Amino acid sequence: MVTMKDVAEHAGVSIATVSFVVNDTKPVTPATRARIEAAMVELGYRRNAVARALASRRTRILALVYPVFERPLNTSSVEFFTSAAAAASARGYHLVIWPVSNDGRELGELLGQRLVDGVLLMEVQLDDSRVQVLERSGTPFALIGRTREPDRYRYVDIDFEATVAGAVDHLAALGHQHLTLVLGSGVDHGDRDYGPFARTRAAFDALLPERTLTGRTIEVNQTEDATALADRIVASHPAATGILVLNDHTALRLVAGLRRTGRKVPGDISVMGLLAAAESGMVCDPPLTLMRAPGPELGRLGADALIRDLEKDEPLPPRLVPCAFEPGQSTAPRRSS
Amino acid sequence: MVTMKDVAEHAGVSIATVSFVVNDTKPVTPATRARIEAAMVELGYRRNAVARALASRRTRILALVYPVFERPLNTSSVEFFTSAAAAASARGYHLVIWPVSNDGRELGELLGQRLVDGVLLMEVQLDDSRVQVLERSGTPFALIGRTREPDRYRYVDIDFEATVAGAVDHLAALGHQHLTLVLGSGVDHGDRDYGPFARTRAAFDALLPERTLTGRTIEVNQTEDATALADRIVASHPAATGILVLNDHTALRLVAGLRRTGRKVPGDISVMGLLAAAESGMVCDPPLTLMRAPGPELGRLGADALIRDLEKDEPLPPRLVPCAFEPGQSTAPRRSS
Repeated sequence: MVTMKDVAEHAGVSIATVSFVVNDTKPVTPATRARIEAAMVELGYRRNAVARALASRRTRILALVYPVFERPLNTSSVEFFTSAAAAASARGYHLVIWPVSNDGRELGELLGQRLVDGVLLMEVQLDDSRVQVLERSGTPFALIGRTREPDRYRYVDIDFEATVAGAVDHLAALGHQHLTLVLGSGVDHGDRDYGPFARTRAAFDALLPERTLTGRTIEVNQTEDATALADRIVASHPAATGILVLNDHTALRLVAGLRRTGRKVPGDISVMGLLAAAESGMVCDPPLTLMRAPGPELGRLGADALIRDLEKDEPLPPRLVPCAFEPGQSTAPRRSS
Repeated sequence: MVTMKDVAEHAGVSIATVSFVVNDTKPVTPATRARIEAAMVELGYRRNAVARALASRRTRILALVYPVFERPLNTSSVEFFTSAAAAASARGYHLVIWPVSNDGRELGELLGQRLVDGVLLMEVQLDDSRVQVLERSGTPFALIGRTREPDRYRYVDIDFEATVAGAVDHLAALGHQHLTLVLGSGVDHGDRDYGPFARTRAAFDALLPERTLTGRTIEVNQTEDATALADRIVASHPAATGILVLNDHTALRLVAGLRRTGRKVPGDISVMGLLAAAESGMVCDPPLTLMRAPGPELGRLGADALIRDLEKDEPLPPRLVPCAFEPGQSTAPRRSS
């Protein structure tokens, strides 16, 4: 296997000059070029045209890496993607959704193809093997979410502390003292390590003693029937009159299930969505009170963080964006008993 | 500008042989290679490495082209994508969602980059400028949906006639004689030309006289408040006791709006979702009776149709897949008045 170094020595030029000729990246005098090409012929050096071409090439394609097989895209992720794609487009980049499993191997193969200039990584876990793969690849990337050591990487994320505080304080102001936090996706795909669940739970556990409220957390899966879901959530903490639900689909199923089992929302139990899409509130009856996931703002900030890196602009400090309170009719003052 | 033809003449070989050397596509004897490389040096022939590399290269990337800025990805599209990506992955291809506007220009730019081996086009319109762009590009493609002249292209689509018949016959069997068809997305982005709406409306208009039923069609937009939506739909055809709704989000809003305005579902009015996702039925109260969009099957068939083309396999005949009836509790016998 003849290398560029062999060609450079044979032609009496630097490796850089050989590389300029091989990759067509800088003009070289005709005489030098001829000497290098002759050395290449003599030594039998073969360009690997594809690899060389791609190594020096920018595609202006950015990949939003998302584990679609493990976690279906929901309304908030779609909002995020649409907004990030619009922000990228305004700066001349094209953002595509790249389905890659949580396992880092597949991501490594993708990066090896050199088809994308940069990566936005979604659904980040506290210990995420994909982040190491990205780091080793040298491909610029930004995280939507945080690992256990967030400050090592560029990221934007939701401000879970502020979001949980907004929801808890809304319910507390209505007189609710016993709360349940529902994490809506089970632990089937390593969700304990999934940043949004871990941070929401931690924020909830830290806040309740401060507010002298009591709370419990329950994890549920995405497929349980609405009635069974409602019964199980109520049974897990019968004193609770306020329920916070992380995940729109679960919140809607819970409200439907509570009604079917004869419990009034909000008369008996107040329900709030956390990190929910506004349109989920609209399809709920009663309209769901929620902390609205900042998909559009996160999308824009995430695309900016990545593109600043690609273009060697100064990085902006990491941003945490709180969910905004969106009033609905699924919460009401606690009924005095 | 020195061409391959000049090099071939100068070296006394065929253009094909020059191309083998330039593109590294076939082995050439060392002597011939040396003669060609010498001719290239003498004439100053410069490889355009990137263009050459990409022209001969297969990326095994397939693009699902979707106008995300004009039509948000909904649950059924996500199901479709996930299933198509899984089918592609099983055959060694990688399917990504490529957001491209309905305007064909942007698609042309994408195809010009030669980064994708093939395209699945979604949200097809009856007259779709993107189809012409695909045809001219020479890139293999398959349509999820049909243009006005379907048989010119490879496609898979929903069987709208069978789907509408399934829903209408279910309601007719329950005694409903006056029906309303709600098309859930307004005409703001040229939806009159959007295949699913046009074909559903045509199937509905053709079927009702055959069944001696009466029906009206109404178009609504995605943002109207649930209460106003319900009032407007009822007012458009006050005699209707059965309503078919194309689009999950609109169906859920309508059921919520009917209840808020004092109408019982299904006591007063039966509601059915058309081309709906099963999970939309679950979050509705009462659970929505629906014709389930065959996203997973269409995804698999769509990926197959495209990959058969890429691999020069015999094309399969175009497939129309009906929506399956999914029982719920939002339909009931018409109340005798």
